[in-house]
Amino acid sequence: MRALYFDKKLCYCADYPVPKPKYNEALIRITMAGICNTDLEILNGYMGFKGVPGHEFVGVVEKSEEKKWEGKRVGGEINIGCGVCPYCLGRMKNHCPNRSVLGILKKDGVFADYITLPVGSLHAIPDSVSDEEAVFIEPIAAAFEISQQVNIKPVDKICVLGDGKLGILVGQVLSLTGCNLTVVGHHEAKLSILSQLGIKTSLKEDATGKFDLVVDCTGSSSGLKKALVLVKPKGKVVLKTTLAKKEPVDLNSVIINEIDLIGSRCGPFAPAIRALQKKIIDTRSLISKTYFLAEGTEAFKCASQKGVLKVILKME
Amino acid sequence: MRALYFDKKLCYCADYPVPKPKYNEALIRITMAGICNTDLEILNGYMGFKGVPGHEFVGVVEKSEEKKWEGKRVGGEINIGCGVCPYCLGRMKNHCPNRSVLGILKKDGVFADYITLPVGSLHAIPDSVSDEEAVFIEPIAAAFEISQQVNIKPVDKICVLGDGKLGILVGQVLSLTGCNLTVVGHHEAKLSILSQLGIKTSLKEDATGKFDLVVDCTGSSSGLKKALVLVKPKGKVVLKTTLAKKEPVDLNSVIINEIDLIGSRCGPFAPAIRALQKKIIDTRSLISKTYFLAEGTEAFKCASQKGVLKVILKME
Repeated sequence: MRALYFDKKLCYCADYPVPKPKYNEALIRITMAGICNTDLEILNGYMGFKGVPGHEFVGVVEKSEEKKWEGKRVGGEINIGCGVCPYCLGRMKNHCPNRSVLGILKKDGVFADYITLPVGSLHAIPDSVSDEEAVFIEPIAAAFEISQQVNIKPVDKICVLGDGKLGILVGQVLSLTGCNLTVVGHHEAKLSILSQLGIKTSLKEDATGKFDLVVDCTGSSSGLKKALVLVKPKGKVVLKTTLAKKEPVDLNSVIINEIDLIGSRCGPFAPAIRALQKKIIDTRSLISKTYFLAEGTEAFKCASQKGVLKVILKME
Repeated sequence: MRALYFDKKLCYCADYPVPKPKYNEALIRITMAGICNTDLEILNGYMGFKGVPGHEFVGVVEKSEEKKWEGKRVGGEINIGCGVCPYCLGRMKNHCPNRSVLGILKKDGVFADYITLPVGSLHAIPDSVSDEEAVFIEPIAAAFEISQQVNIKPVDKICVLGDGKLGILVGQVLSLTGCNLTVVGHHEAKLSILSQLGIKTSLKEDATGKFDLVVDCTGSSSGLKKALVLVKPKGKVVLKTTLAKKEPVDLNSVIINEIDLIGSRCGPFAPAIRALQKKIIDTRSLISKTYFLAEGTEAFKCASQKGVLKVILKME
């Protein structure tokens, strides 16, 4: 099959072996895949990953022991637990210490014609949700993870820092709670996607007062520092930004102001699919460009450029 | 009056002016005061404080507009809010942006014959609580702040890092919840105070598995790093250690493991007094040495030595 393969550098490969489904796994033909910032970081050495990257996808089940799945259009959760540890048995498979993660850790990902995934990780995509929408399920789920962790109150004053792909999705998802939301960024064009959806935006993070909750989606080491200035005493900061390098952090303000810093990663797929079905999340405005798989290395170059939002890989 | 005065260096002063009570303030004659690590940090420049340090005390009200207080033995909360801002009106005066803090910020503290405090900050000490116990109310309250912030479950596996003054009090307070507690430290003599109270201790932080909650009371920059190794995915880390210098922190593990980092400072006095009244907190074992106020500079030297726990200043 065709695949993008990463081992120190990213290459297009026309004859990569088709993965063989293990027990309980389905074979899925990828239709469309999205390039995420994590994929760009992987190319910079994040997680020491070697193989086929990519974890945002929509596809069609080609083969499954459970015949009802065959032919179904699906998305899929990316953390694959061992199934027998206390985390897996306690509905925390995302934190299984022996997990593999699609295209990130010990498992080939979606920048290829085929992947395998456990049937239990699959989610059927309703007909009313297009491929261009479905390819965003994984990052929208990551945005919904915030409300899984924090009780967002409709009167809360909330700030999302960052107007990248994740910041725009987090802004849209949090705005559904009815909260008093401001998304702060540095790119007028990106912020206008949100203001056209009726979401308050700002180019300056210092003009906006103090917030009950600040979500760091900056993808930059300055994000936490800014968040700690913007958050109220006893407020919460949700961290969505993984960073390759360790930065000095002033924890005194966290203690003196009794701030709650909450790390946040992957989220629940079902609410993301429901939101797309209801047409209350705009994904179309986030697609900057679409490439064919064979143009993968070029697509990655494009995705890493400033001002570019989501770059999509189409298999056909 | 007599006082210890700090301005770049700590001096004993025999003729420091007696403070004048402002509206709604009482004049309190100090009986006994405790030296806290924060006081030692103040001598290293923390908060840029200049004046009389000290915030752990027991005393007797000498003068008050509310006559019922006069002659009463009292402890007192150390954060003095403006009384009119949203934080003060919302029962969060500890976080009033215009607050002063006894012996720490904009207000002379307790290493002196007299202090003034708003009557609203006073707590009467029951007869059954001795001065030697009452002088610990403030740090015991800081320990109770953890259960104000986090729902401690009786089945939780909890680790307290640090066997200093605060670690020993936090260990005692958390053990009351029925939780599965281990206090980790490096000093056999200090840990034995806890093991004599039936609390599990350990000299090695790596031998103890993973915890639902880790409380950093190390007073050291290595505390958070250790806590992040010891905490379970989706677990909580309570930060009690303010540090003068900023340290590089690996926030990736906070995000990947979805850890909740919670800054924690001053706590509620009433539960601390109730616990002392019930004789379920041992403070006597924590007193390393008692000095008279005139020996204050020597007392500070003693308090900063390794192996020393609480140093007390007696006024008479």
